[in-house]
Amino acid sequence: MTSSQLLSRRDLDFLLYEWLGTEGLAARAPFAEHSRDTFDAMLDLAGEIAAERFAPINKLLDAEEPRIGPDGRVVHPAGLAEALRAYTDSGMPSATFGPEFGGMRVPFTVAQAAFAYFQAASVGASAYPLLASAGANLLVAHGTADQIERFARPIIEGRWYGTMCLSEPQAGSSLGDITTRAVPQDDGTYRLFGTKMWISGGDHGLSENIVHLVLARTPDAPAGVKGISLFIVPKVLVGPDGSLGERNDVALAGLNHKMGYRGTTNTLLNFGEGQATPGGAAGAVGHLVGEEGRGLACMFHMMNEARVTVGLGAVALGYTGYLHALAYARERTQGRPAGGKDASAPMVPIIDHPDVRRMLLAQKAYVEGGLALSLYCARLIDDRASGDEAARRRAHDLLEVLTPIAKSWPSQWCLTANDLAIQVHGGYGYTRDYAVEQFYRDNRLNPIHEGTHGVQGLDLLGRKVVAGSGAGLRLLVETLRATTGRARAAGGEAAAYAGLLDPAIDRLAEVTGVLWADGDPAVALANASVYLEAAGHVVVAWIWLEQLLAVSGNDAFAEGKRAAARYFFLYELPKTSPQFDLLAARDRTTLDLDPAVLG
Amino acid sequence: MTSSQLLSRRDLDFLLYEWLGTEGLAARAPFAEHSRDTFDAMLDLAGEIAAERFAPINKLLDAEEPRIGPDGRVVHPAGLAEALRAYTDSGMPSATFGPEFGGMRVPFTVAQAAFAYFQAASVGASAYPLLASAGANLLVAHGTADQIERFARPIIEGRWYGTMCLSEPQAGSSLGDITTRAVPQDDGTYRLFGTKMWISGGDHGLSENIVHLVLARTPDAPAGVKGISLFIVPKVLVGPDGSLGERNDVALAGLNHKMGYRGTTNTLLNFGEGQATPGGAAGAVGHLVGEEGRGLACMFHMMNEARVTVGLGAVALGYTGYLHALAYARERTQGRPAGGKDASAPMVPIIDHPDVRRMLLAQKAYVEGGLALSLYCARLIDDRASGDEAARRRAHDLLEVLTPIAKSWPSQWCLTANDLAIQVHGGYGYTRDYAVEQFYRDNRLNPIHEGTHGVQGLDLLGRKVVAGSGAGLRLLVETLRATTGRARAAGGEAAAYAGLLDPAIDRLAEVTGVLWADGDPAVALANASVYLEAAGHVVVAWIWLEQLLAVSGNDAFAEGKRAAARYFFLYELPKTSPQFDLLAARDRTTLDLDPAVLG
Repeated sequence: MTSSQLLSRRDLDFLLYEWLGTEGLAARAPFAEHSRDTFDAMLDLAGEIAAERFAPINKLLDAEEPRIGPDGRVVHPAGLAEALRAYTDSGMPSATFGPEFGGMRVPFTVAQAAFAYFQAASVGASAYPLLASAGANLLVAHGTADQIERFARPIIEGRWYGTMCLSEPQAGSSLGDITTRAVPQDDGTYRLFGTKMWISGGDHGLSENIVHLVLARTPDAPAGVKGISLFIVPKVLVGPDGSLGERNDVALAGLNHKMGYRGTTNTLLNFGEGQATPGGAAGAVGHLVGEEGRGLACMFHMMNEARVTVGLGAVALGYTGYLHALAYARERTQGRPAGGKDASAPMVPIIDHPDVRRMLLAQKAYVEGGLALSLYCARLIDDRASGDEAARRRAHDLLEVLTPIAKSWPSQWCLTANDLAIQVHGGYGYTRDYAVEQFYRDNRLNPIHEGTHGVQGLDLLGRKVVAGSGAGLRLLVETLRATTGRARAAGGEAAAYAGLLDPAIDRLAEVTGVLWADGDPAVALANASVYLEAAGHVVVAWIWLEQLLAVSGNDAFAEGKRAAARYFFLYELPKTSPQFDLLAARDRTTLDLDPAVLG
Repeated sequence: MTSSQLLSRRDLDFLLYEWLGTEGLAARAPFAEHSRDTFDAMLDLAGEIAAERFAPINKLLDAEEPRIGPDGRVVHPAGLAEALRAYTDSGMPSATFGPEFGGMRVPFTVAQAAFAYFQAASVGASAYPLLASAGANLLVAHGTADQIERFARPIIEGRWYGTMCLSEPQAGSSLGDITTRAVPQDDGTYRLFGTKMWISGGDHGLSENIVHLVLARTPDAPAGVKGISLFIVPKVLVGPDGSLGERNDVALAGLNHKMGYRGTTNTLLNFGEGQATPGGAAGAVGHLVGEEGRGLACMFHMMNEARVTVGLGAVALGYTGYLHALAYARERTQGRPAGGKDASAPMVPIIDHPDVRRMLLAQKAYVEGGLALSLYCARLIDDRASGDEAARRRAHDLLEVLTPIAKSWPSQWCLTANDLAIQVHGGYGYTRDYAVEQFYRDNRLNPIHEGTHGVQGLDLLGRKVVAGSGAGLRLLVETLRATTGRARAAGGEAAAYAGLLDPAIDRLAEVTGVLWADGDPAVALANASVYLEAAGHVVVAWIWLEQLLAVSGNDAFAEGKRAAARYFFLYELPKTSPQFDLLAARDRTTLDLDPAVLG
């Protein structure tokens, strides 16, 4: 396995340097130590470790699902710990942090591009560092100096891992309904009692400690999301000097057995149901992060970046699936082209069949479009942190509206890419002897976790596009129109596609207004998923137009970008037209449907 | 488990009696012994055995994949043999055959409806009787009296099973390229040498014998499909009196490890690679069916019905998934409806969320539309066999054009239904504790086997609609128009939908002409998959209009049919509009694409 089967480095270089101008970030103070050379070195290293350490264990992690060993702890195939050690030894965990944490502070854009290699190689293994770094980011942003020192630093140094403990068995999408309790103690800590579900990385033997970030309710907190606070609950208690003490009262209550994504242990955890912990009181010891009642806001700091990175994971699975299908289609021979009647002629590689090329081109349009969208959002995260005042505000506002799309669009369409990768392989693709069926199973999680499609649709239509009296939508439209303006000026194919995209942008703006015309959220939100899909395709069409404007020359790479852009504008963008018709009609079919007539 | 979680009996009754007038078949001579009562009894029995014997082992067959035991034979969980014994004991294997085989000759329509229960309960287990009955049908149609007696009768009596041996490792979709050789012997038999891939049920301990139906080439046969002949190759040799003799030279060479559908053993078989068989000659003993060089035509007798039944299997998986999702949506509580701001109000069943209802209604439209299409085709198979002269011809011709759609449409959209069933379940749906993830994995095979989507598209656009100078298309259009005519006369909703369907029918006819305008098969066939999808949606819209015209009253069932019809016309049929635009443009994107630019 080489990194060229995971992602196309040529494509990454194009997106980072020819499109997003990533080397320009080195002109900003935080990244002044850097240059394209150091960025490239990080990509090289990531590709190498991903291909040599992560990819070889990907099937093993699927076949040997995590299980509970005789000592009550989760057992993984040994290769997982070795792969993660290579990741840590390479310095990846601290890469986006500054020298105060031993990091080299690379831009998030570059770190995301590097991380995509690991997701492509083994999305299950990659979830451990992903959750760890998301947790560390949250603590650095919202924790006290002491919390950062005791809980974030060991994560950044790659010694510990972390989790996000949000869902409970009875409360998944509806976080306001969690019931885990946090009882304040005289010493300023809290004791937690409750059960958390779907906790990825909730238990394992990969590190001495696990830092759980847990949402819970304090006594007398108001009902709903306003009553939720965030707590650090370490698996093993940590002394003031950072030394490890006794086990906290966090117990592994069960493992979830998933269709895919099996490299990531997924657990049910009980907090505060065991024996009394040191000091005599019962419950799991927790440390409040930020203020009481502000837990969800803090968690969303983590969730928003996690959503962009979940989208990137969907892209990575789609991308490596595409490269596998492409290699197969060039090797496998079958039949003759249409009209080739000579049965004694040799069979041709299946890539010679137009329908196979259609399936490959569709995958290319989905995965390269998804990668570009993901890296565009990563760049916005850099701009939000290190741009000038205006750039920071714009990046923040644009990210708000793009995040539900950056999460959901790849989760839908790069899963479709994996479906097509199987189809290109025919019967072989349905077997575990090939890689693509696992990508498909792994990717099926992405439309569910970190907020389902339905939740993303409500977020986009119910919050993001209407925020600031519609400022979110206006910013999006303005951003897209700037590109179509450039495309019209450029002429040729780009101008022709701008002529297709502008009316779609108009319709997006128009139906948003129509849906909210009488301010009845019920009618608007009943159409939120269709709206999300239509908006997603408009945004990715824009991303393709951006790429088309950025690409130059006439080599195979450039022509490939043009072919995929053409595919997207001819085969994909038109799918939004009937969706907009439906939205413009403020359809009430699902809203008014009497559930009794189903069945 | 009860049969009501597999299929809706109310829906079956509606389709069979209120729509297709199935009891009218009892007026035809072959079915004169029958009445609605006997049909109902068969459906009752099928539902009961499927629910009580097949469904309980479905997860087990998935978890304990077939493996090769120490004796070199395939080992299954014991429950499989017991379930199949119950199937045999109920008389199902002979149900469509006459009293000369101990059967009760029920119409194919009723047998298919009954069989769908088994597919819904365990599609993996159901494949054994499906392959057996397809093989027996072929032999009864094309075999000699002796072959029928020696090889078909034991299958019909439920004592043996059968296989279809078409593909080889190097030849799947391209059957003309198979290389298995059949060498004639002085005694009139043949000896076969070669390797067959993807053979479902190719080895097992479920019966004393397995009748392989094998495509092979005789010496000096012309290249391509015209050189292919069909042979009976029993696993165990059969004497003139039907007694079992020695093992034939058919060896299990390996098992395929699939993503799903694991209850069905899938094998690689070697013919004639072992020791010499009795009589001294090497090779596997085979008996020619029909004439040399006519093998593919004979096999298509079996394949066409198998394709309709593969479509039915996709429907059955989608249908039971829908019923599971519906039950879950009624039980699981989460959140509050849009606009419900009172966080202390109790959570509502998720079916109260419009987006969940959207996902359920979509599933209903797909699976009930698919079931209606499948049973309509089954009825055509009955009409082809037992109608008057004109009805037979019409049924034959209409079946020709509908078969690729009846195979591919449910394989695509009832898989989508399974995807939505997972989504309704949220994280739980992604775990193996629930049933729906298996349905999704199982169903993913259906777009591949018995001819991929790509192959079905070529069949529809390249052969079926152009057959007889376009007679296939004309018959389809005429059939659909007859319904829209009735709908316009009926007025109301039906007339409104006819107003949507007629233009789609027009466009289907129009683009068919445009695609073939200059007779260049390359341009036409490069668009075959898009054509297949568009034609499929037009046909299923027609099927929904048919159902809408057939349903009466205002009870929940009738209103449910109306809601699903509405959904299909508002949300689904409009998807064809951009597809027709693309087809009308005779798009050359995939045809002209230089494979070198991919990657």
